[in-house]
Amino acid sequence: MQGAVEDVDVPSASDVLRRCRELVRPALVDAVGRLHPWTGEMAAYALGWSDTAGTPEPGGSEGKGVRQALALLGAEAVGADAACAVPGAVAVELVHTFSLLHDDVMDADALRRRRPAVWKAYGTGPAVLAGDALLARAVTGLAETPGDHAAAVRRLCDALNDLVAGQAEDLRFEHRPWDGPGAVGPEEYRSMAEGKTGALLGCALALGAVLGGAPEPTVAALDRAGRHLGLAFQAVDDILGIWGDPATTGKPVHADLHRGKKTHPVLAALAGGSRAARELGTLLASARPTDAAAERVASLVEEAGGRAATRGEARRHLDAARDALRATPLTRTAARELDVLFAGLADRVM
Amino acid sequence: MQGAVEDVDVPSASDVLRRCRELVRPALVDAVGRLHPWTGEMAAYALGWSDTAGTPEPGGSEGKGVRQALALLGAEAVGADAACAVPGAVAVELVHTFSLLHDDVMDADALRRRRPAVWKAYGTGPAVLAGDALLARAVTGLAETPGDHAAAVRRLCDALNDLVAGQAEDLRFEHRPWDGPGAVGPEEYRSMAEGKTGALLGCALALGAVLGGAPEPTVAALDRAGRHLGLAFQAVDDILGIWGDPATTGKPVHADLHRGKKTHPVLAALAGGSRAARELGTLLASARPTDAAAERVASLVEEAGGRAATRGEARRHLDAARDALRATPLTRTAARELDVLFAGLADRVM
Repeated sequence: MQGAVEDVDVPSASDVLRRCRELVRPALVDAVGRLHPWTGEMAAYALGWSDTAGTPEPGGSEGKGVRQALALLGAEAVGADAACAVPGAVAVELVHTFSLLHDDVMDADALRRRRPAVWKAYGTGPAVLAGDALLARAVTGLAETPGDHAAAVRRLCDALNDLVAGQAEDLRFEHRPWDGPGAVGPEEYRSMAEGKTGALLGCALALGAVLGGAPEPTVAALDRAGRHLGLAFQAVDDILGIWGDPATTGKPVHADLHRGKKTHPVLAALAGGSRAARELGTLLASARPTDAAAERVASLVEEAGGRAATRGEARRHLDAARDALRATPLTRTAARELDVLFAGLADRVM
Repeated sequence: MQGAVEDVDVPSASDVLRRCRELVRPALVDAVGRLHPWTGEMAAYALGWSDTAGTPEPGGSEGKGVRQALALLGAEAVGADAACAVPGAVAVELVHTFSLLHDDVMDADALRRRRPAVWKAYGTGPAVLAGDALLARAVTGLAETPGDHAAAVRRLCDALNDLVAGQAEDLRFEHRPWDGPGAVGPEEYRSMAEGKTGALLGCALALGAVLGGAPEPTVAALDRAGRHLGLAFQAVDDILGIWGDPATTGKPVHADLHRGKKTHPVLAALAGGSRAARELGTLLASARPTDAAAERVASLVEEAGGRAATRGEARRHLDAARDALRATPLTRTAARELDVLFAGLADRVM
């Protein structure tokens, strides 16, 4: 009976995300308000709170706030009040926004959430500066949190280093060949994706647990769960980067193919060795694909099993993330909400 | 007799800087070695250790290392061993390098220490990434230092926020008129310069004192001394930006004039109200100066008293910095070395 009642009570992933955004919002607004007004305006635009004229656009292009939610749930999962994790939630959300601003500069991505990226709207220099301001504010907010939070600051720093190293790998991969001895291996891809996407998701959960006073093994398990979630997330993103509907992804069709990004579906397709894989290899080796060629590349990747392999990769990491949660003593409600959230994030392509 | 012996023993500013660089070098090399190899290569280039091919260039284009020296002297000045301040010295040097990389992107400065800036040598995206990596590593190194260094991390974060806000002001000033109600006032200029240049110099001294276990009033006095030094330093830089020899500054002649930078000499000249000031105002209001016009602008700034006023500003802040040191109980040797260092930095144009 109790179980049945709880099932009814489990909120949807978007309910969980909304509740967490509302809890974090005042502190996030306060953090952005402490920035120089100009970088604050760019930050508000990047967070989807306002347009380039600074006019509020409530809910317009706001992110889901996955990282802030993970921080709060990390605290609740170890029996603490979500409020204690708010400084961690703000920190990971600001670091995420920083990384979007700078990554869009590095990747020359002109669109973000269906709007011009900050560098397109304000210029490259200002976007770099706004990213710097967000990063500085993220670390400061956590360092200023009353209580002894040296462990929290160290965790955030570690994630930052991993994030930047992952982005470095991703950029370097663009200069590597698709095939042959210099090709990007599965382990290299995984390490890049774990740094670029997994580190901050793991950090979000871990920070919540640290701020909630959890013992180190619990913190480590939550970090591991978040890292696997990140790998699932990156696999999903790779699928959307090739086959995603631009209306949903907010990015141009085949964006990753045009840039020669070493994504999981293409690498997995090439590794298959089928006729389609060989044709794919020849096509990719010739030049960066035109629109028509990108269409053909996408078909060949699918035919050679790349899409299915990446879906499998996402599922494996989602399972591993859930296993890491189940193997850890967590409060029941938060554990269920995390499970719902994890599934919702990976379900975008399954 | 003792005084005379001590006078003989006081090393020159470049002796002090060299000794400090040698003490910090192994830890700085270690910190750069922890970066992703690609960002590490860019960092080594930015630090003047190697060329773009990664080939070592010993001593070629290395910076003076003022900030690392201030950190070590800050510790020695409060009676601690310089070694305890090495993590602080590494942190401020990495933050300084981060800010050079990103500022050169924002200011489109193609030359740094007579070599192509990192964004010119490696590309804008990679330069942004290398800066991010240096910033992350700077905070991490300090956060990982054994012992309770929460206060040190907070100080570094505060300086970072000031630094970024100062850079934001500096960029915004370029869009402000030279004259009239929207013109940049002396207090606004000072606040920008204190953020952009003073905050990190103050932080360097303060970090040394914090890591050396000094009480808060001593730390605050050293921070204040460093901030005044920064204001003197910025005034000197402004003079060099107009009248400096490109062979010494490593930057193009009249660089600041061509970009419409709101520097102290020009603002002070305009505020004078003389005939030269009025002609200067008209010339500046018409357009960004050509080479010939920049020459004329420089002459008018000098004629209107801008150069002398800025030299006075540098001297006042240098005196204030020295006063702040003298009003604080510091060990005699370190206080003398600081005095020599302060004078040496400001003497470049006096």
